[in-house]
Amino acid sequence: MLLDNRSTKPHEALAETLSADMEAVNALIRERMASKHAPRIPEVSAHLIEAGGKRLRPMLTLAAARLCGYEGPYHVHLAATVEFIHTATLLHDDVVDESGKRRGRPTANLLWDNKSSVLVGDYLFARSFQLMVETGRLRVLDILANASATIAEGEVLQLTAAQDLATDESTYLQVIRGKTAALFSAATEVGGVIANAPDEVTQALHAYGDALGIAFQIVDDYLDYAGDSGATGKNVGDDFRERKLTLPVIKAVALASDTERAFWKRVIEKGDQRDGDLEEALRLLAHHRTLDATRAEATTWADKAKASIAALPQNKLRDLLIDLADYVVARIR
Amino acid sequence: MLLDNRSTKPHEALAETLSADMEAVNALIRERMASKHAPRIPEVSAHLIEAGGKRLRPMLTLAAARLCGYEGPYHVHLAATVEFIHTATLLHDDVVDESGKRRGRPTANLLWDNKSSVLVGDYLFARSFQLMVETGRLRVLDILANASATIAEGEVLQLTAAQDLATDESTYLQVIRGKTAALFSAATEVGGVIANAPDEVTQALHAYGDALGIAFQIVDDYLDYAGDSGATGKNVGDDFRERKLTLPVIKAVALASDTERAFWKRVIEKGDQRDGDLEEALRLLAHHRTLDATRAEATTWADKAKASIAALPQNKLRDLLIDLADYVVARIR
Repeated sequence: MLLDNRSTKPHEALAETLSADMEAVNALIRERMASKHAPRIPEVSAHLIEAGGKRLRPMLTLAAARLCGYEGPYHVHLAATVEFIHTATLLHDDVVDESGKRRGRPTANLLWDNKSSVLVGDYLFARSFQLMVETGRLRVLDILANASATIAEGEVLQLTAAQDLATDESTYLQVIRGKTAALFSAATEVGGVIANAPDEVTQALHAYGDALGIAFQIVDDYLDYAGDSGATGKNVGDDFRERKLTLPVIKAVALASDTERAFWKRVIEKGDQRDGDLEEALRLLAHHRTLDATRAEATTWADKAKASIAALPQNKLRDLLIDLADYVVARIR
Repeated sequence: MLLDNRSTKPHEALAETLSADMEAVNALIRERMASKHAPRIPEVSAHLIEAGGKRLRPMLTLAAARLCGYEGPYHVHLAATVEFIHTATLLHDDVVDESGKRRGRPTANLLWDNKSSVLVGDYLFARSFQLMVETGRLRVLDILANASATIAEGEVLQLTAAQDLATDESTYLQVIRGKTAALFSAATEVGGVIANAPDEVTQALHAYGDALGIAFQIVDDYLDYAGDSGATGKNVGDDFRERKLTLPVIKAVALASDTERAFWKRVIEKGDQRDGDLEEALRLLAHHRTLDATRAEATTWADKAKASIAALPQNKLRDLLIDLADYVVARIR
């Protein structure tokens, strides 16, 4: 379903439906990112947390819990947990990527330093862990501990796969399933678990989060070549400059002529990038229609997400989650 | 009690007494630092974990658990947890300190890169968290979550206090209590908790770990000025070059004449360090006898550690822990 002619975007409709819960999450986040002894911590955290991110991941947790009829207080803790883990990984990513821009603003490692980004990330990760412990639910801790390990593993895999033209689509899928989808699927699954939903429901929520996260990351990688910096808050061509093998490039490398292969070898493997190279890369992606193919894959994953929860009982939140899957891909327009 | 004329050092005696447990810990560590998808992870981890550290922290957990009569399997998980948290913080520290040497070998961030150190640290932290979850004990999770937050907070505090001559002994104590003692006290406390020891025993074990950790870090900071690089595996003067305000310098600044204060201002606050400055700093520490005063404080904390567990029932492991407190300070000789 296309959403162009709707007045409210699905993530906004979700935010509206969950507004009381989201307010509680925001209050908890502000409370827990404080530090009695080290004022640098809330400064750095606030820079990122209050930069106007969509709070997509915590909303997924809230929606999943409410969808399963949860009435207790701990979905708020879990939503804050998920946002803290996300923020911690962003802080560490910016150090790893040496990026200068995030959500349209200078990154924390530029405004302060790499040290602050590393340590404040560690602090938020520890705080997230405290929040989960407060729920008193070991299964929730288990799911989020596993997700944390998978995220870090995906990031390391991305690091070693970068600059390697042999990286194929299956490695790419493994990377994004780790670095992005693992937190999405944990976010939705723990919402169901805290509500004591039956296994088939928590499994459906997990599958939804997994597919949604994959679609989301594929779209992100698409926009890195095709987006405009004003709308995405990222610099176009960042992945190219960082010599990351993302789906549009992996597909173009697979279809490359000998001359084109030599080009990719020079700019990605050797890192010898000159004026006009980004434009040449964009020309090759257009020539092989790999941006179109990338968009098609994102749509397939969004459809998988929708199918995962289609069998759950009809419910406003379920329908909003289904719309959200469409919207994630609609960002491409 | 001085240990110079004993043939076996206390940490070696502990290792011997706990050798079967330590073997199980080492096996578990090797198993859990593996990664199916990202071989970079065990490479980086092994560099540090197998560099011949003394495994002091996991031994504290094992000793505390056995001292309390524990016969189950989970002290091994907790000891591995503690070593993973320690290794993760070392990896991140080396990025933060921009250090080149650790345990007498080049640091991981030099051998690989900062990115690998950050991400492998994150992975080990997540793995440690999985290990704790396996124990199924929420109180253990609570203690280690709190310790993790305190560690990160101490590190950030150290970062903001560095290069600031106004840093006093109470801020210094807060920093080292966070960055070092929090993990020591959690390590001993969870040993008691897993053994279902009564509150007064787990509190005594916590107090022991706290005081031991403080003594340990004060000695470390002493050795940074007075040690020899061969024995400590660190470069002498590292803290000076990194402009860290540690106890020997804080005490010297407090006693400084105007000329001396100008010297500290130049080398620590402004970071304008020239040939001969480290020698001048050492001369000032000697002149004000601040290394002696630092050693005296370490001894006081070691005595506090011993007193904390003196009331526990007589037991070989209790006595080894008491000897260990002496030994931590005896490293100074």
